[in-house]
Amino acid sequence: MDAYLKQRAELIASERALRPGHARIQQASEAELKAEQIVRKIRADEAHSIWHSENPDFRALFREASKEQMAEPNDDSARTTADEWGVEHPEVVNLFPGMAFLTARKIIENTKLYKIVQKMPKGGILHSHLDSTVDVDFALSLAVKQPGMHISVPEPVTANNVESILPQFRQMASSFKADATDVSHAAYAAETWVPYAAARQSFSSSLGGPAGFDAWVRSTMKIDPNEAYTKYNSHRKMWDKLRNTFYVSNGLLRSIPIFTQYIKEYFWASIADGISYVEPRVNFLFKAMWSAEGEQNVTHREFVALFGRIIDEVKAELKEQGREGEFVGAKIIYTTIKIITPEEMEWYFDECIALKQEFPQLIAGFDLVGPEDFVKPLKYYAEGLLRFRKRIDDLGLDLPFILHAGETLGDGDEVDDNLYDAILLDTKRIGHGFSLVKHPLLMDTCKKRGIPLEICPISNELLRLTSSMPAHPMPMLIAHGIEVVVSNDDPGAFGNLGLSYDFFQVLVASEVTGLLGVGVIARRSLEASMLEADRKAKALASWDARWAEFVDWINKEYGHLLDK
Amino acid sequence: MDAYLKQRAELIASERALRPGHARIQQASEAELKAEQIVRKIRADEAHSIWHSENPDFRALFREASKEQMAEPNDDSARTTADEWGVEHPEVVNLFPGMAFLTARKIIENTKLYKIVQKMPKGGILHSHLDSTVDVDFALSLAVKQPGMHISVPEPVTANNVESILPQFRQMASSFKADATDVSHAAYAAETWVPYAAARQSFSSSLGGPAGFDAWVRSTMKIDPNEAYTKYNSHRKMWDKLRNTFYVSNGLLRSIPIFTQYIKEYFWASIADGISYVEPRVNFLFKAMWSAEGEQNVTHREFVALFGRIIDEVKAELKEQGREGEFVGAKIIYTTIKIITPEEMEWYFDECIALKQEFPQLIAGFDLVGPEDFVKPLKYYAEGLLRFRKRIDDLGLDLPFILHAGETLGDGDEVDDNLYDAILLDTKRIGHGFSLVKHPLLMDTCKKRGIPLEICPISNELLRLTSSMPAHPMPMLIAHGIEVVVSNDDPGAFGNLGLSYDFFQVLVASEVTGLLGVGVIARRSLEASMLEADRKAKALASWDARWAEFVDWINKEYGHLLDK
Repeated sequence: MDAYLKQRAELIASERALRPGHARIQQASEAELKAEQIVRKIRADEAHSIWHSENPDFRALFREASKEQMAEPNDDSARTTADEWGVEHPEVVNLFPGMAFLTARKIIENTKLYKIVQKMPKGGILHSHLDSTVDVDFALSLAVKQPGMHISVPEPVTANNVESILPQFRQMASSFKADATDVSHAAYAAETWVPYAAARQSFSSSLGGPAGFDAWVRSTMKIDPNEAYTKYNSHRKMWDKLRNTFYVSNGLLRSIPIFTQYIKEYFWASIADGISYVEPRVNFLFKAMWSAEGEQNVTHREFVALFGRIIDEVKAELKEQGREGEFVGAKIIYTTIKIITPEEMEWYFDECIALKQEFPQLIAGFDLVGPEDFVKPLKYYAEGLLRFRKRIDDLGLDLPFILHAGETLGDGDEVDDNLYDAILLDTKRIGHGFSLVKHPLLMDTCKKRGIPLEICPISNELLRLTSSMPAHPMPMLIAHGIEVVVSNDDPGAFGNLGLSYDFFQVLVASEVTGLLGVGVIARRSLEASMLEADRKAKALASWDARWAEFVDWINKEYGHLLDK
Repeated sequence: MDAYLKQRAELIASERALRPGHARIQQASEAELKAEQIVRKIRADEAHSIWHSENPDFRALFREASKEQMAEPNDDSARTTADEWGVEHPEVVNLFPGMAFLTARKIIENTKLYKIVQKMPKGGILHSHLDSTVDVDFALSLAVKQPGMHISVPEPVTANNVESILPQFRQMASSFKADATDVSHAAYAAETWVPYAAARQSFSSSLGGPAGFDAWVRSTMKIDPNEAYTKYNSHRKMWDKLRNTFYVSNGLLRSIPIFTQYIKEYFWASIADGISYVEPRVNFLFKAMWSAEGEQNVTHREFVALFGRIIDEVKAELKEQGREGEFVGAKIIYTTIKIITPEEMEWYFDECIALKQEFPQLIAGFDLVGPEDFVKPLKYYAEGLLRFRKRIDDLGLDLPFILHAGETLGDGDEVDDNLYDAILLDTKRIGHGFSLVKHPLLMDTCKKRGIPLEICPISNELLRLTSSMPAHPMPMLIAHGIEVVVSNDDPGAFGNLGLSYDFFQVLVASEVTGLLGVGVIARRSLEASMLEADRKAKALASWDARWAEFVDWINKEYGHLLDK
C-alpha cells in the first residue's frame, strides 16, 4: 500500500508539473504559501456556506440580491419580476461555485473570495472589444449630456414593441433641427432623428417616463439573465442578441466626443480593478468616425492619435497622484470584421500598416473579428493575410497577428478549422481557442511556441459555449500545459466589468488552481502582451511589487482564519 | 497559397490519423463511402430543416410532439402542461443538434437520421446498471400482475405530497393479509403494506384514479424534463433524484419473479435495437433477494444461475427463429456501492471470487459504484482492492476490474482523483472517465494500454455534467486517440432505452464523426467486452456481416438523396 500511495503521489505530481507556472509556484515564499492556504480555506468554507443549494441562509441572501438587482430606479413596470432575473423558481435555483454568472453575480459580490480577487493585481486585459468595455449606464449618461446626440427608431415605441425595438444613435450638427421630440408618440415618423435628452424626457409615462426610457435603451445594450438562460439560450441566439447590442452602441461610440470620455472611463475603471494595461481590439470597419459637429470626417489616424493623448492624460494624472506604477498604458489591436470581401480587406491592410508606421507604440497587432459561427472563415482571407504578412515583414514592422479562432462548439467544421489557419498564419496569441482541446497537434504547437490562449470565461458562458465554469475547457488547457490569460471580451454587454468576475469564476472552478495559480495567469498577461521589452520589464516589476503587497494584505486581513 | 493549402490539409490529416479506427475508415469500401455520404447529407439537411430554431415548420412539429409526450392515458390532471416538458416558452425553445435529450426526444424520433441509427448494429452495452435498464411502464405492468407485490408510503398520498412522496415495493408471502387497500385514504397507516394492484385500483379519483396512480409511481422512477432542466438543474440535485428512482425500484426488482421477467425484457428490447451483447453492472449490496413467497432467501448464487438460464432461454428462442447471430449473450459486472466500510467490502470480495469460480462465463469483472461526488473515493478501498487483485491473480481467475472513475466536473479534487486510482489499480475499462480530459498523463496511459472509456452521453447530460452534446468532452477524447464506447447507463430512469438515442446524439454533435466513425465505436464495444476470445471472434464476425447489410440498406433506401 505504501508503494501504491507513493506511486500515486508521484503520478499526480508529474501531471501537475506540466502546468504553466509550476516552477514559479514551487518557489513560493512563506507569505505566499500562507495566503494560498487562507484563500483555499475561504473558498472551501464559502462553497459550503454560500454555494450550497440547501443552505437556508443563502436563500435569504439570494432573494435579497434578486430584489436589489431587479429594482431599477422608479421602475415599477411589470419587467421587475423574477423572470427578468432568469429565475423562474427562486426557491429551487441550484447554486454551485462557477454557476451561471448573471444569476450568481450579486452572490459573488457578497463573498469574501470576491473581495480578495478584487484586490489582486490583474496584469493586462488582452481580449476586449473596445465598443463594449464600459458600464452601459455610464455610456448613456454621456449621451444625455452630449449636445447633438440623437436617436431614431424604426417605428414609435409602444408597450408592444418595447422589448424588441432597437434605437440607433447619431451625432448631429448643431444646426440640425429635429422634427420631433418623442419617440413614443404615435405621430413619430419612422427613423427620424430626435435629440437624445429630449426623447428621454418626453418618453411616455405609460412606458415609465425617463426611467422607462433608460430601462429600454439599457436593455438593448445589455444581456439580462432571462435572455441568456431562457429566451435566447443557445449560441446562435445569444450572438444575435450580442450583435444587436453592437448595432445600438455603434452610433453612440462613433461620436468622437462620446468615445473620448468613454475610453477615459475604460482606463480609469480598469485601473480601479487592479488592471495595469489594456490591449483592446478596435473595430475600424467604418472608415471614419463622427465629429462633435456631426460630420463623418474623423479619420482612423486622428482617432489613434486621440487614443494616444488619452493614455498620456491618464498617466499624467496618475503621476500627479503618485500612482504611476498602476498603469503602464494601452495599445490597439487593429481589427475589421469577417463580413467583407478579400478585395475590400486590402484597404484595411494598407491602413493598418500606415497606422503602425505612424504610431508604432499604439498599434499592437492585427485581428479579424465577428461571431465565428456566422461570418467568413479565416481561410477565406488566408491568401491576403499571407501577402499582408510578407509586406509587414519586408517593412521590418513589429505587427503580429493576434487572431480570433475556435470560439465555437463545432468539431471538425469550417469554424473549428479556423484554429489551423490561425496557427499556420503564425498568430502570436489565440483569441478564445475554446475548441483547441479537440486538436492535439495544435495543442503541441501552442505549447512549443508558447502561444497563449485569451480565455474569456464569462463571455463563453453567456454565449452558451458552456453552461458554467466547471464545464469550461480552461482546466483542461491548463492541465495540458497550454498558456492561458483571462479576459472579459464584451463586459459592457455582459456586465463582467474589470477582470475580478472572470478571475473569480476561474478560481472557484478548480481545486488545483488556487491563489498562486491565478497569480501566474495574471502575470502571464503582461508577459503575453505586445508591450516593448523595456516597458514590459517595468510592468512586470511593478506587478511583482503589487503582488507582494497583495499577499501581505491577505495575510494581515484574513490570517486569523487559519487559527482555529 | 498552394503551399499553404497543402500544409493545412496535411496538418488536418495528421490530426485525424490519431483517431481510433482511422485505419479502418481509410479502408472503407465503395458501398461504405456512399453510405457515409448519404448519412452526412441527411444530417446536414436535417440540421437545417429540423434543428434550426427559426424553422417555422419545425415549430409545429415540436408543438405536436409536445402534445403527444404530455398526454398520459386518461390523465387529465394539471400536470399535463408545457411545464411538465421543461419548456416554459415553446415558442422560443432553442433547437440545435445534440440539444437537451428530454426536450428533443420526440423530435429525434421524427428524423431520418434516427431511423438509420436505429437500424445500425450496435455491438454491446458495456455500461448499464441492471436496476434501471427497462421501460418503467413495462416494469410497473409486471407489478400489477405479480401476486404478492405490495407497496407502502410514509404517509397517505395527497394532492399536496403526490409530487414528492416515494413508494416502496415488497414481495410478500401469499399468506400475508394487508390491513388496507388504499394508500390515498386519510386512514392509511404510515408504512403499512398494501397489495400493489389493489392500491392502484382504489387510488383516489381526486388524484386521477388508477391512471393518476400510474403517473405518480412512474414519476418516482423516471426523470422528467422539468426536473432535469429547471427544478433539479444541477449535478447534485439530479443525483438525488436518480438515487430516489433506485430507492423506489429496489423492492420491486429484488423480487425474483419480477426480476426474471424484467431481465428477459432487457435482453429482448436490446436485441430489437440491434444490440448483440450486454454486460450490465448488477448491484449486490443486498446480500439476498426476495422469493415469490416473500422470503429474502434467494442468494446471489441462485440469482447468477437464474441470469444464466434467462440467457439460454433467449438464445434458444432466437435459434428457433433462425436469428442466432443477433445475440451472443450477457455477462454480469459484479458491483457493490462505495458507501460501506473497507471491512464490510471483504464479504463482497469473497463472494465475487466464489461466483467467478462457479460461473466463469457469467461474471465479467468487478466494479464499485455510486454517485462519485457523494460516496467514498476509490482510494478508501485501495488497500483492499490491491489484496483482492493479488488473490484473483494467484487463483488464476480472469476477473478484471472495470471501475467507475471521473464521473465529475471536479478538477483536482478527491473525486477527479479517482482516475489515478482506477488506472493504478489496472482497470480494463473506465466507467465514464468524463474528467479524463484534464489528465494528460492518464490519457497517454489509456492510449498506450488501450483502456477504453465507457461514455454515457445522455446520462452525462441529464446528470448535468454537460448541458448538451456539442459541449461534451467525447469529441476531445476521440481527437486525442482515446478509445471510447457509447452506453446508456440508467435508461429506465433517463428514457434513453437501447443505444439508438445515445448514438444519435454522438452522430449529430461532430462533423468529423460520421457513419463510419460511429460504426468504429459500435464495433469497439465488442472488442472491449469481456467476452472469451472465441465468442468475441464470433460476435465480431456477426457484427461485420450485419454492418455490411446495414450499409447496403442505407444505399438502397436513401441512395436517391445523392442524385440531386
